[in-house]
Amino acid sequence: MKPPVPPAEESTPEARHAARMQRKKALIDEKIEAAGQERGVLVVNTGNGKGKSSSGFGMVARALGHGMKVGVVQFIKGHTETGEEAFFRRFPDEVSFHVMGEGFTWETQDRARDVATAEAAWQQARALLRDPAIGLVLLDELNIALKQRYLDVHTVLADIAARAPYQHVVVTGRSAPPELIAAADTVTDMTLIKHAFQAGIKAQPGVEF
Amino acid sequence: MKPPVPPAEESTPEARHAARMQRKKALIDEKIEAAGQERGVLVVNTGNGKGKSSSGFGMVARALGHGMKVGVVQFIKGHTETGEEAFFRRFPDEVSFHVMGEGFTWETQDRARDVATAEAAWQQARALLRDPAIGLVLLDELNIALKQRYLDVHTVLADIAARAPYQHVVVTGRSAPPELIAAADTVTDMTLIKHAFQAGIKAQPGVEF
Repeated sequence: MKPPVPPAEESTPEARHAARMQRKKALIDEKIEAAGQERGVLVVNTGNGKGKSSSGFGMVARALGHGMKVGVVQFIKGHTETGEEAFFRRFPDEVSFHVMGEGFTWETQDRARDVATAEAAWQQARALLRDPAIGLVLLDELNIALKQRYLDVHTVLADIAARAPYQHVVVTGRSAPPELIAAADTVTDMTLIKHAFQAGIKAQPGVEF
Repeated sequence: MKPPVPPAEESTPEARHAARMQRKKALIDEKIEAAGQERGVLVVNTGNGKGKSSSGFGMVARALGHGMKVGVVQFIKGHTETGEEAFFRRFPDEVSFHVMGEGFTWETQDRARDVATAEAAWQQARALLRDPAIGLVLLDELNIALKQRYLDVHTVLADIAARAPYQHVVVTGRSAPPELIAAADTVTDMTLIKHAFQAGIKAQPGVEF
């Protein structure tokens, strides 16, 4: 079999690059055209690597850039004021920011108190999910509360499903339950390749919190 | 062999939970104590999943919350104004925001122009890396420019290594080169589990851009 003869206009490296990019662009444009449905999406960031919460906060920034109002509920993380909290609290008219407020779970030794705290935080989440003025709700570290069974996954999924139309929801935290993954539109596993912590570098403000 | 007898104080479910959390806390505290080194870190977000850029922008928000100044250079992405750009341009005294400005590579068919544009953007990045007043530099989608060989990875790594002391650098984009991964402190592979795009849902403002 003879090899196919390339068209004359693809005979230089520059022309081949141009032709390749042209084909790539056509393919992408076609996919964008096909993906025409507009609605609120449920995004889940899970896994052992970095970037689950920070990605959620990046989406908060994006949503604000598009003129949306945003709701944030941070589950579990509570005792240290984080950079994201200090920053987004600057915009009380645009961001409704709530922190569950009992510190990491391993700093409490009282399961009943953890459950009560998680349930109170979920009431705040539910109010945000029902509010049609809120374009994006970030439920940061919710997966930890689900994993510890502080909250019932079916109640949580029912409230998310019944949310205001066109509202986006982002759920973060390790060990996302399978029911949540099944219900989500977009799921990313942040996979740890390496972490500065392993090399003896302290958690850094602006990076880890 | 007889099973070990649990201590009396761990005999109820509540007490066992408390004891388990106590041990977990001790272990975590020990690790935090050991990880005592403070310095600027190089973070790389790569992989095919969502959250690479948004995580970088979440770290920008965190850094601002800690009172740092931040530099951003977006490589490749340029023709559409994104939510993150609209939002972070609100803070010109705190965020130095630069966009390379030629659109996605598959929208240009001129390699020489792409190279020149990438090199001009790298000059801006280098100026930020040398500025000791900047606490965090986000080089968004730099990996694409490296992958396409618009920029030389050794020049890029030398400039990053020679950056201002204590400055954090975040590099995002698919296909991070092995040299960059080797030089980084923290590397995460954002692994695609599923994506709304596959289900025919349009890219959404606040979520994808």
